[in-house]
Amino acid sequence: MSFELVSLKLQVRPNDLDSLGHVNNATVLEYLETGRWDWLKYHKLQIKQKIIPVIARIEVNFRKEIILEDVIIKTKLEEANKLAQYQANFWQSIELFREKNLLVAVEARIQLVFIDSTQRTLRTLQEFLEEANNHNNSIN
Amino acid sequence: MSFELVSLKLQVRPNDLDSLGHVNNATVLEYLETGRWDWLKYHKLQIKQKIIPVIARIEVNFRKEIILEDVIIKTKLEEANKLAQYQANFWQSIELFREKNLLVAVEARIQLVFIDSTQRTLRTLQEFLEEANNHNNSIN
Amino acid sequence: MSFELVSLKLQVRPNDLDSLGHVNNATVLEYLETGRWDWLKYHKLQIKQKIIPVIARIEVNFRKEIILEDVIIKTKLEEANKLAQYQANFWQSIELFREKNLLVAVEARIQLVFIDSTQRTLRTLQEFLEEANNHNNSIN
Amino acid sequence: MSFELVSLKLQVRPNDLDSLGHVNNATVLEYLETGRWDWLKYHKLQIKQKIIPVIARIEVNFRKEIILEDVIIKTKLEEANKLAQYQANFWQSIELFREKNLLVAVEARIQLVFIDSTQRTLRTLQEFLEEANNHNNSIN
Repeated sequence: MSFELVSLKLQVRPNDLDSLGHVNNATVLEYLETGRWDWLKYHKLQIKQKIIPVIARIEVNFRKEIILEDVIIKTKLEEANKLAQYQANFWQSIELFREKNLLVAVEARIQLVFIDSTQRTLRTLQEFLEEANNHNNSIN
Repeated sequence: MSFELVSLKLQVRPNDLDSLGHVNNATVLEYLETGRWDWLKYHKLQIKQKIIPVIARIEVNFRKEIILEDVIIKTKLEEANKLAQYQANFWQSIELFREKNLLVAVEARIQLVFIDSTQRTLRTLQEFLEEANNHNNSIN
Repeated sequence: MSFELVSLKLQVRPNDLDSLGHVNNATVLEYLETGRWDWLKYHKLQIKQKIIPVIARIEVNFRKEIILEDVIIKTKLEEANKLAQYQANFWQSIELFREKNLLVAVEARIQLVFIDSTQRTLRTLQEFLEEANNHNNSIN
Repeated sequence: MSFELVSLKLQVRPNDLDSLGHVNNATVLEYLETGRWDWLKYHKLQIKQKIIPVIARIEVNFRKEIILEDVIIKTKLEEANKLAQYQANFWQSIELFREKNLLVAVEARIQLVFIDSTQRTLRTLQEFLEEANNHNNSIN
């Protein structure tokens, strides 16, 4: 399997703004989640019931305020060659159009682990990817 | 000024849950924000229009899933004696009642900076606290 | 079965507020949903997988602005004797403490239908209640 | 002034979905609000600090479940010739692409009143529109 950086254009909604007209920091996490779903969809992966990705840690740096505008969410799986590991890291950024340039507003690292929902044990990234991928080939 | 660890009991709402019945990670940030508002209120501080706290970085570790239950949000200002600094860190945790014990579900460090909204310059924690405090003594 | 008006005290969170410091109208619907979950819990009813309540229509009157405060959500099933019907109406209100009185801030009527998730057909309130109730008696 | 029906294409986000994979009813109100902001923007109207539109009543019919897809939000001001009235009604719908057709998922009527934020009195639709429009012509 080979993975790419996936970019998604997303509309800010009025409800995302705080009293100063900036996107609230909790809403930024929703944007990042939307980016990861789009990454899964792009790679034709689907979360199944057995092995579930669970967020273990997030680190987010806020560099610029986001206002009522369109943003670009970039999502990339770190070190995708280390498939045997029990965790995976996504690097994500949220970027803004400012005078024909893209400026980074948010940088984030999202650390995931993979839980076997029946046995409650840890599984590897590879095991997660196989399940998420396999089922696409079956009749659904 | 002397600051205390402030504890807030908060109700999880059905809308906070994801499809697995767990509190979504973006919603966890809302809980933490609610805890910081409560910390401000406890210390009789009020955010005014001139010096505005802005989140620069968050780090959150997710240790346990939160379900539809009451949680305790603990909020503490780190190194409150370093008032002359241009940033401040809040340490926060979200804890759960499990068989008469409190278990830590979430641990977070929230790094803030203080922006002068008219001059767009950085201000110190002390300057923020003085403004937030002063105005309480005046007729409002 | 006999049903009662159920009252729930709920905390407004800072994130619920719009730029004017009032609870946003979409958030009011979350409060009402929280009230209905509490009504179900009070009556020891649990939504199961077969018959699912689906909102068909909502009517909400907004009478007072809600600020950062505690609110009371009252939830009542209308005409609970008409169990054979294919729809049910909840009457709900959100009330505020103002100088030792309760003032009505929001009044709402929520119309539900009951869908058989396997057959995609309508079911009656009674059939929903029987399923929601029965399963409580079994070992779960 | 003449007003048009305004259509906005909006992306559903994963966080908008409930445990059954459908857009939650509170989130539907956020979509409608996004549609009204877009309507204002299309007509070059801007909400100012003096006369504030406040939602007095909403009626929403839910006809189809919305899943993770793009939706069209249509927003229209009812009877825009009755400008002297103290209230205004928006008719809104949310529509879905299904096999090259648009299906109505949600129909809503949003009733607004206009409050003078300094005098706390009611104002007319016309007074609101004049303020919202006037200020665009001045240097801001």
